[in-house]
Amino acid sequence: MSNNVACREVSVQEACEFLTANDGFLLLAHAQPDGDTVGSCYALAYALKKIGKKVAVKCADNIPSKFSYFTAAFKNDKIENPLVVALDIADTKLMGSLQEVYGDKVELCIDHHISNRHYAKRLLLNATAAANCENVWAIVKQLNIPFSRHITAALYTGIVTDTGCFKYSNTTVQTHKIAAELIAVNVDHGDINRIMFDTKSRARIKIEGAVMEKMQFFFGGRVAFIAITTEMINAAGCTPDDLEGVNTLARTVEGVMIGVTARQKEDGLFKVSLRTNEPIDASAICGLFGGGGHPRAAGCEIFGDENTVRDAILPCLKSVLEEQGCLI
Amino acid sequence: MSNNVACREVSVQEACEFLTANDGFLLLAHAQPDGDTVGSCYALAYALKKIGKKVAVKCADNIPSKFSYFTAAFKNDKIENPLVVALDIADTKLMGSLQEVYGDKVELCIDHHISNRHYAKRLLLNATAAANCENVWAIVKQLNIPFSRHITAALYTGIVTDTGCFKYSNTTVQTHKIAAELIAVNVDHGDINRIMFDTKSRARIKIEGAVMEKMQFFFGGRVAFIAITTEMINAAGCTPDDLEGVNTLARTVEGVMIGVTARQKEDGLFKVSLRTNEPIDASAICGLFGGGGHPRAAGCEIFGDENTVRDAILPCLKSVLEEQGCLI
Repeated sequence: MSNNVACREVSVQEACEFLTANDGFLLLAHAQPDGDTVGSCYALAYALKKIGKKVAVKCADNIPSKFSYFTAAFKNDKIENPLVVALDIADTKLMGSLQEVYGDKVELCIDHHISNRHYAKRLLLNATAAANCENVWAIVKQLNIPFSRHITAALYTGIVTDTGCFKYSNTTVQTHKIAAELIAVNVDHGDINRIMFDTKSRARIKIEGAVMEKMQFFFGGRVAFIAITTEMINAAGCTPDDLEGVNTLARTVEGVMIGVTARQKEDGLFKVSLRTNEPIDASAICGLFGGGGHPRAAGCEIFGDENTVRDAILPCLKSVLEEQGCLI
Repeated sequence: MSNNVACREVSVQEACEFLTANDGFLLLAHAQPDGDTVGSCYALAYALKKIGKKVAVKCADNIPSKFSYFTAAFKNDKIENPLVVALDIADTKLMGSLQEVYGDKVELCIDHHISNRHYAKRLLLNATAAANCENVWAIVKQLNIPFSRHITAALYTGIVTDTGCFKYSNTTVQTHKIAAELIAVNVDHGDINRIMFDTKSRARIKIEGAVMEKMQFFFGGRVAFIAITTEMINAAGCTPDDLEGVNTLARTVEGVMIGVTARQKEDGLFKVSLRTNEPIDASAICGLFGGGGHPRAAGCEIFGDENTVRDAILPCLKSVLEEQGCLI
């Protein structure tokens, strides 16, 4: 997985020993922070404070205010020459603008990505964890630190973020066991999930409405196609945050095997995202256009206006569906 | 809770004794069947077959084909004078057209609604269960019947249906513990949840798009108003199933405290549904229009076209928001 001989994989026990033996930690979240990296950082930060350590949390980008129910109460300590701990960061590139300063200074990385680049001196890697917060939960438990409401809220948030609230297949027996333990201590899970999953910005409502109304179907409904133009994005007043997950909409339609979402990057250029159901290989299709990705989710770029893009990709989709015997 | 002296509450143990001591069961699901009543019926049906019992499942309405992954493999036995078991049915009225035949013949009711009308001879009522499938899980476990894939799929489906995939506050420690046990045995939870939560009909996509595009905001975004006309429903080709849950959309918008959804019932009459956040009392507001309901979800009927309806209810909402100090 790595050529970095200086990286040593450590156990939960060893990670805890490192944390208790030292003081003054800077906990890093990855850029474009999600609930799991933020939850991991703050849960560990509150826990370390409980045992008298100096701690600060840092992220290249602003931490979204929707997480304030567990982030607001935390105050960063001032620390000179802190020991850097990276949470949920598989690659130093994902640190964003903080990579240059901290990329080669990570003392401990706690992660759940099998693709981790082994850039840290010590690496606690448990890739069976659905969320990195499962790993932080194990650390807090091992350290025997009481689970405060902020800690449980942070950990629960990370877990629901990375599992789609226990919806995705990455959810394990252990994920549910940890959720049971956190709720037994005290989590306002109803409120947290309302904020995480049932709250949409007005801009999101507007763009989602426009996208759904505009969705086109081809080949007996096997393909759903959406083009999101800069004009639509501006009309709805969308930020990149508002568009998160919009790529998944097309495939959710009953009978659709290939969901195509073409988002305009600039005049005459679209970023095309493909989501497929088995056995359609999204990565192979995007490869034809110089892109790539995973079997069920891949991307590429296509030049032209939205009609050119659609007409370029549709014939490929038709032959793939034919080959796989998926045309009705 | 009831005046029916002939109804006796029983324990899981006693319910199991009744099931093992007898044979020839007709398991009833409630009308307009959801995942919990269907999951309860089929999980118990498969379990009883395993111990050699004759079993049939019945419902006043068609059981949706989306549940076929656990219903398709089951064959009803032919049973004369069956013993009737009602699952997830709080009131015989909810049996639909089967009420007349079976309403006063229920030998055992297994339910989780605190509002259960105690109409059965024996009632296993556990209102702390988020889903009735938690109660059926306890029975299958008590009977020491191996959890087959059909049983786990049925039970898991019921649990995720009634908890919004563990999202709602009714989810308990026990809910997660049962989910962990079911997944440990074998459940295709990723696939099940995709069918239950991430699959929309084309008609649903169309009506949702239209509704979102049409949503109006008032009083600094504290109120979101949607009118769904018969014309919109027809244009999208919607069945009642396609509209399920559409009432909850308006309140999901950030900053909205009152979500109003007015659905045209006939020419000049709208069914108005209110969803509110604390401290706004939806039931009190709907009471002003001769309706009622719960503090966070209530309904009423208002005569007029969509503009009349909107103009009738908005001033009330404004004063309630003012009273509660919720206007920005």
